[in-house]
Amino acid sequence: MRKKSIGFIGLGAMGKPMAANLVKAGYLLSVYDINPEPLKELAALGARKGNSCADVSQDVDTVITMLPADPQVREAVLGVEGVLQTAKAGATLIDMTSLGPHTSREVAAAAMAKGLKFIDAPVSGGNVAAEKGTLTIIVGGEKEVLEAQRDILETLGAKIFHVGGIGMGETFKMANQMLVAINMLGIVEAFTLAVKLGADPHTLYETLKVSAGGSWILENRMPNYILPGNYTQPGFALDLLRKDVGLAVDSGKLEKVPTFLLSEAFQVLTMASAEGHGNKDYSVVTEIFEKLAGVAIKS
Amino acid sequence: MRKKSIGFIGLGAMGKPMAANLVKAGYLLSVYDINPEPLKELAALGARKGNSCADVSQDVDTVITMLPADPQVREAVLGVEGVLQTAKAGATLIDMTSLGPHTSREVAAAAMAKGLKFIDAPVSGGNVAAEKGTLTIIVGGEKEVLEAQRDILETLGAKIFHVGGIGMGETFKMANQMLVAINMLGIVEAFTLAVKLGADPHTLYETLKVSAGGSWILENRMPNYILPGNYTQPGFALDLLRKDVGLAVDSGKLEKVPTFLLSEAFQVLTMASAEGHGNKDYSVVTEIFEKLAGVAIKS
Amino acid sequence: MRKKSIGFIGLGAMGKPMAANLVKAGYLLSVYDINPEPLKELAALGARKGNSCADVSQDVDTVITMLPADPQVREAVLGVEGVLQTAKAGATLIDMTSLGPHTSREVAAAAMAKGLKFIDAPVSGGNVAAEKGTLTIIVGGEKEVLEAQRDILETLGAKIFHVGGIGMGETFKMANQMLVAINMLGIVEAFTLAVKLGADPHTLYETLKVSAGGSWILENRMPNYILPGNYTQPGFALDLLRKDVGLAVDSGKLEKVPTFLLSEAFQVLTMASAEGHGNKDYSVVTEIFEKLAGVAIKS
Amino acid sequence: MRKKSIGFIGLGAMGKPMAANLVKAGYLLSVYDINPEPLKELAALGARKGNSCADVSQDVDTVITMLPADPQVREAVLGVEGVLQTAKAGATLIDMTSLGPHTSREVAAAAMAKGLKFIDAPVSGGNVAAEKGTLTIIVGGEKEVLEAQRDILETLGAKIFHVGGIGMGETFKMANQMLVAINMLGIVEAFTLAVKLGADPHTLYETLKVSAGGSWILENRMPNYILPGNYTQPGFALDLLRKDVGLAVDSGKLEKVPTFLLSEAFQVLTMASAEGHGNKDYSVVTEIFEKLAGVAIKS
Repeated sequence: MRKKSIGFIGLGAMGKPMAANLVKAGYLLSVYDINPEPLKELAALGARKGNSCADVSQDVDTVITMLPADPQVREAVLGVEGVLQTAKAGATLIDMTSLGPHTSREVAAAAMAKGLKFIDAPVSGGNVAAEKGTLTIIVGGEKEVLEAQRDILETLGAKIFHVGGIGMGETFKMANQMLVAINMLGIVEAFTLAVKLGADPHTLYETLKVSAGGSWILENRMPNYILPGNYTQPGFALDLLRKDVGLAVDSGKLEKVPTFLLSEAFQVLTMASAEGHGNKDYSVVTEIFEKLAGVAIKS
Repeated sequence: MRKKSIGFIGLGAMGKPMAANLVKAGYLLSVYDINPEPLKELAALGARKGNSCADVSQDVDTVITMLPADPQVREAVLGVEGVLQTAKAGATLIDMTSLGPHTSREVAAAAMAKGLKFIDAPVSGGNVAAEKGTLTIIVGGEKEVLEAQRDILETLGAKIFHVGGIGMGETFKMANQMLVAINMLGIVEAFTLAVKLGADPHTLYETLKVSAGGSWILENRMPNYILPGNYTQPGFALDLLRKDVGLAVDSGKLEKVPTFLLSEAFQVLTMASAEGHGNKDYSVVTEIFEKLAGVAIKS
Repeated sequence: MRKKSIGFIGLGAMGKPMAANLVKAGYLLSVYDINPEPLKELAALGARKGNSCADVSQDVDTVITMLPADPQVREAVLGVEGVLQTAKAGATLIDMTSLGPHTSREVAAAAMAKGLKFIDAPVSGGNVAAEKGTLTIIVGGEKEVLEAQRDILETLGAKIFHVGGIGMGETFKMANQMLVAINMLGIVEAFTLAVKLGADPHTLYETLKVSAGGSWILENRMPNYILPGNYTQPGFALDLLRKDVGLAVDSGKLEKVPTFLLSEAFQVLTMASAEGHGNKDYSVVTEIFEKLAGVAIKS
Repeated sequence: MRKKSIGFIGLGAMGKPMAANLVKAGYLLSVYDINPEPLKELAALGARKGNSCADVSQDVDTVITMLPADPQVREAVLGVEGVLQTAKAGATLIDMTSLGPHTSREVAAAAMAKGLKFIDAPVSGGNVAAEKGTLTIIVGGEKEVLEAQRDILETLGAKIFHVGGIGMGETFKMANQMLVAINMLGIVEAFTLAVKLGADPHTLYETLKVSAGGSWILENRMPNYILPGNYTQPGFALDLLRKDVGLAVDSGKLEKVPTFLLSEAFQVLTMASAEGHGNKDYSVVTEIFEKLAGVAIKS
């Protein structure tokens, strides 16, 4: 079977290595980004440099969008030079951006009104997994549409979950990010208070990880970032988590669901970002509490 | 070696089966509780019925307190008919109540001023583990004091952690309960919002438990309580978790450590308790959010 | 001087009486709303019924928009049948909707790029003041633009504040609504707790209104709504306050300003709305706390 | 009528000038404080220096306590050298400390069990009003007891409110302090966000003070502290407000009343105190938000 032709839009920290993996796997790629640098890099690997979202969407089997957030996706798909100006009926749009579920559905509806197929397929794993092609991909949409694009998704990721209809990929990603933020900030408060009372942070970590308070975040962030006091690569930037939590705050508002702890988490992340920590791993929020309490959790 | 003589104070849902296990294991027990019923039951098993905290503390090797909260421990130990009126120098006081760390240290200091040894040894596992003698016991205090009482602790529990000096047992327990409450309420918010957006709760559970948002609480409370919609025994009562979270709020106040998410969790638990859910498993807070959002997470 | 010709867009609870006042004052009005009913009513008073936003904006001196929220203003001004399709350079656009400041500036920039003048002029006072022409109008924009439209504004309102450049009308309105919501919810918490402790609510009101805790909201909402337990007309609907608070939450997010109490207020308003109180005066949130605490503040 | 004999306990920033005013008015004062300095000062004015709380309570008509907080009052009244060891039946205990309502009632009950009369009479106005004898005094207890002590209260204060039975003085004071804190922090958030969006803080102040968002705190703290950026004397210290808010948080916990905004306010005050602002006027919390947002509200 011939390899699909793909229009790939968005060559940032995630999109660039993903597009590169698709080129290397033999797909015919037309790529577009507002930044000329990564365009050149992809062209050097064999992709065709496009001039606009509309340009790379013309006559391809699949369009992939991997962009920063909701406004960019709206512009790229619905805009005057957007995907829907040229993409042909029967083509598939895979939006891999982390979007608000409401935006995802709005974009999907517009695409389907033009005869396109759609799946929302946000990822996790960060740029390391993007480079290795080992992303986790959470897919919403019809099963047949997913299956027809499985070859592409398996080139990009190691685990593919199909979790429901359109918008459910974004919804599940959002729920996960809610727990990441809330569990993380709970850990920061618990450790700060306990260490202020005299607890040894290593012993506390070893005890809690086998107790009812245990979590993936505890087992991952405590030994890898917080105890060593090292908030650099290849973590997940605080401003990106703040963006994801903000999408969930917005969804709670639209759906009229109270989100007490989530909103609190958003405020603490906002404070941390305002203090200049936005580009560090989100667990850096620990430093704010260490400073306020006059304690050292790191060793 | 002869079995130690023990004064055991507090025969509630936890203390009664713990005292029974000690009697069955051959310890000489004098027991006291303000409620005559469990006193009779323990006497039937072979314990001596005491008349007061002071009475059961006289001439014993070890005094164990297992009481509802800080005021009862203060009264039982420091009061006019309390442990310190009669317990002999060299005896050991093991407080197994879940206390605020500050109260624990205050009681310990008073006991040590009278020549007693002290460890704080709060437990987890609930009344089922209390009956089976499989509690998890988190111990603060000097290692030698713990070792000298290890026979007793191993009669009561399956896992014994020594986590630091006096007050650290209570501190670690408190940190754990903070995470239990915060992780739980995060799950409730994430599931309510996602289900309102159309997510299938079972699929969401299966996805999140292998994702970064995973936690012990998710793996325990979701399949056992929330998905079946069953908030009865042998869970952990919402009012007990509220009490533990309240101790942490108090500690944060005393130590001047901000506890944004913890305080939010306390408010939600207070609302749930005010709505009459105090005696159900704490995961019942889900029902409040289901009702507010008009969704069903249970199936 | 001849009376200005005006295109008036949005004939809801506020816009309809405002437009009527302008007709009665002798202005030449072309009006538009998606709902045909109020269009007929205004036509009966002498206004011209328009077919679209673009239609009523053609060849008029001034366009006024008075719409529910940001998306409607975007659509009405920037949309394919919007104001900017037809309004002539030199005309003035007065947006009187309560908008997020960012949207206000975005709309203003688009209008000014087409040669229009712009002021943002949100109002307060509710539909009673709209009918009487006694609104308070908070104006952002250039002073000369305001002065040239003062005749219109004085037809609609009793107090006109010029508070700064473009977007400042919306910003001041937003700051006011933040305080309305936060002061209101503080009062609810304070009264609920004090009454639960045995306070007489009337005595508490009389004492607090002459104390440091006094506020306009206390003096207005307590005697008029909460003490009589009457949450009906002509108050300000909880869902409208929730919308305004939500705009402020969004602004805090965009500006990266922590808004701890505001976000908390939004959550409580969301809970109240989810419980079905959205159409009552916002002080109805008192009923939720009365019920939770088992007390009566109303008499 | 002969002037009453008074035992006065607690000669801090408030108690010292209050005791001095009583001496100057001709009352027979026995005074006590753990700090010898103010004792000497009062002795120089003509008071008798006592040796203990019990000592100054012997054979007097009235005992006044004006202490930092709950533990000191418990110790001073109920302790082994406390008021109740010596005060005669029929004497009156006036507790003027800002206490939690529960503690107030507990102390009152113990005093009345010994035959004493009791009123709780917390004050507001700060040390300036204490010196001038112009305090506002909020009294709980029986009307006849208050009337019999009115001469003393009128020596100390300018306004005397009788607001209910025992504990109501403290309850009303607490409700007032809740509103002070919540209204203050709302103002800080609203001004920070609006100024970040470009608002002129003076214009914003002038506009809001005549709008629905107006409050005593806005009219007092904005021109006197925040706009000049001066957080020094004779304000009310942030740590004192934090203590009062903490009492309300505790009361909410004991009464099972949710206090969402109050708890949030407590967290922000805790953060401010942890950052070293505890001794400045509480409006200093503005500086934290100014710094986070990178704006200047002060001019």
